[in-house]
Amino acid sequence: MRVVLCGFGAVGQGLARLFESRADDLYARFGLKPRIVGVADSGGAASDPSGLRAADLVAAKAGGRSVAACGGRAGMTGAELIAESDADVLVETTASGYEDAEPGMSHVTSAMARGMHVVSANKGPLALAFPSLMELAAHNCVSLKFSGTVGGGTPILDYAKNSLRGERIVSFRGILNGTTNYILSGMAGGMSPGEALEDARSRGYVEADESLDLDGIDAAAKLTILANWVMGMKVTLPEIRREGIRGVGAGDVRRAAEGGSAVKLIAECDGDLSVGPREVRTDDPLCVNGTLNGISFVSEHSGTQTVIGRGAGGTETASSIVRDLIDIRGEMASR
Amino acid sequence: MRVVLCGFGAVGQGLARLFESRADDLYARFGLKPRIVGVADSGGAASDPSGLRAADLVAAKAGGRSVAACGGRAGMTGAELIAESDADVLVETTASGYEDAEPGMSHVTSAMARGMHVVSANKGPLALAFPSLMELAAHNCVSLKFSGTVGGGTPILDYAKNSLRGERIVSFRGILNGTTNYILSGMAGGMSPGEALEDARSRGYVEADESLDLDGIDAAAKLTILANWVMGMKVTLPEIRREGIRGVGAGDVRRAAEGGSAVKLIAECDGDLSVGPREVRTDDPLCVNGTLNGISFVSEHSGTQTVIGRGAGGTETASSIVRDLIDIRGEMASR
Repeated sequence: MRVVLCGFGAVGQGLARLFESRADDLYARFGLKPRIVGVADSGGAASDPSGLRAADLVAAKAGGRSVAACGGRAGMTGAELIAESDADVLVETTASGYEDAEPGMSHVTSAMARGMHVVSANKGPLALAFPSLMELAAHNCVSLKFSGTVGGGTPILDYAKNSLRGERIVSFRGILNGTTNYILSGMAGGMSPGEALEDARSRGYVEADESLDLDGIDAAAKLTILANWVMGMKVTLPEIRREGIRGVGAGDVRRAAEGGSAVKLIAECDGDLSVGPREVRTDDPLCVNGTLNGISFVSEHSGTQTVIGRGAGGTETASSIVRDLIDIRGEMASR
Repeated sequence: MRVVLCGFGAVGQGLARLFESRADDLYARFGLKPRIVGVADSGGAASDPSGLRAADLVAAKAGGRSVAACGGRAGMTGAELIAESDADVLVETTASGYEDAEPGMSHVTSAMARGMHVVSANKGPLALAFPSLMELAAHNCVSLKFSGTVGGGTPILDYAKNSLRGERIVSFRGILNGTTNYILSGMAGGMSPGEALEDARSRGYVEADESLDLDGIDAAAKLTILANWVMGMKVTLPEIRREGIRGVGAGDVRRAAEGGSAVKLIAECDGDLSVGPREVRTDDPLCVNGTLNGISFVSEHSGTQTVIGRGAGGTETASSIVRDLIDIRGEMASR
């Protein structure tokens, strides 16, 4: 399987490393033999139809250089790479943006137009245009997968869609952003809002654009993807009612604690779609702390079920991309 | 799909009701049109190739009678029913026993020998003979499914096997018995062991054979099934190192609480297989209370993931049987 990567940060590098470290396993168990035939980052791109070596690519990044250093071309864009490539699959891992989701949006649409399957760990295109991207994929007879967009390596989307097949999910609510959960957990432990934010920053948990975390945009993007995929709704990010955690004060957290609850940034689908700070009982399985993510699905016949895991991480998200590639491999083989 | 039911307690009746209440949905979404062509309970059996009515069967049980009252024969056994039936699937829901797992074991093996697929919510046969039953199913070219044996309606087995496909599960530990968890939660809340047990009894949570819960046999049976299915081990119930909760005193629970932990009956697969009382940190997502079940899977690349839900209940378990039937329907259609 010829793979082209757009974006080569923690997730892309994690994926390249998994391809090498798990090569035998992936081939023996799933018939998957991924070959990286092109990579683009913000500084340029490299391509080789016979396959680029993960070690070389990672070494270039470790040295502060672009992947273009691996026999490629500085300044070459992802769009140009895709236009020249005849890969089977595009793996899109550039940063999630929510204005126009570029350059990810163009990568995804042009790859599909060229007949490539797409695995996107980039939430932007899906949050802004889920319904039309799914139509485009169907029109071009390609797969569009996005397991890594929600829950990192925790297969939340798959659980809801597949493990609960035959069930009807009535509603769900989740803690979908680890950064704000870390900050709110810090405040529950006695920190001021400022101290908790600074603590999160110092650990590298906060996005460069802090608004994505603090104003609930990241959580709302994930909620949009869940609502479309799990509930069959046709919604986009701007339709989500959204409030972040900037208005949560020490007093709110204290009052919640006195009542046996904790303040959490909850993304909810219950008829209405919303993201906002809510009190959650501390004895509710959903009430997880630190950077953990969690989601509770209320099903028609099987009660409430909660899935908890790390919601981010390069290797974790990369492992969910591997899952998507295994599925695409299966679909290609059965055609 | 012609279905024969052995056992008609809470799960069997829940299933019969689901078949009727969800008839349109199951057919429209999954092409599944289940027809109950035979039912056996401890008092007798009834059969009708054109289908028995759920309402009649449930009414007979509600009136304290055997399903034989629905035009069947008192004293007729499940084995006799299977021998005379030409159903597509046996759904086995008689009580789980762990001496010889009869009559469930004979039901399962004779149905498979007759070319029927089998869905077992009965843990007994699987706990005692998982490896050989899987071989028997393969030999007879039939499916053997058992989603309802672990986690009730919570698809724990499916999560580990399917949602985490492509991952390697390194180890896992779970709270797999709701009754003992309820008792231990009561003790953590200040009850004496005797009071907590009496409370659980009064709510109908304790099995008629209390040893199944209190001595960890039920948890060990589920661990056996998980170890075989998820980890590919070939083990049976007697090989599980097992200790129940009878030895847990108020002092143990208090000391755990002082250290920020709670005593839980933990079923664990970590090289070794064991069931026993263990201290779990209260801030661990696995530390759920009441009758809830939970399980944490440690994966190679995606961190630790925890699934929490109700582990029992007639309708919940019935809904997992429906899931199995949907899968069998899909397999039958693709042949």
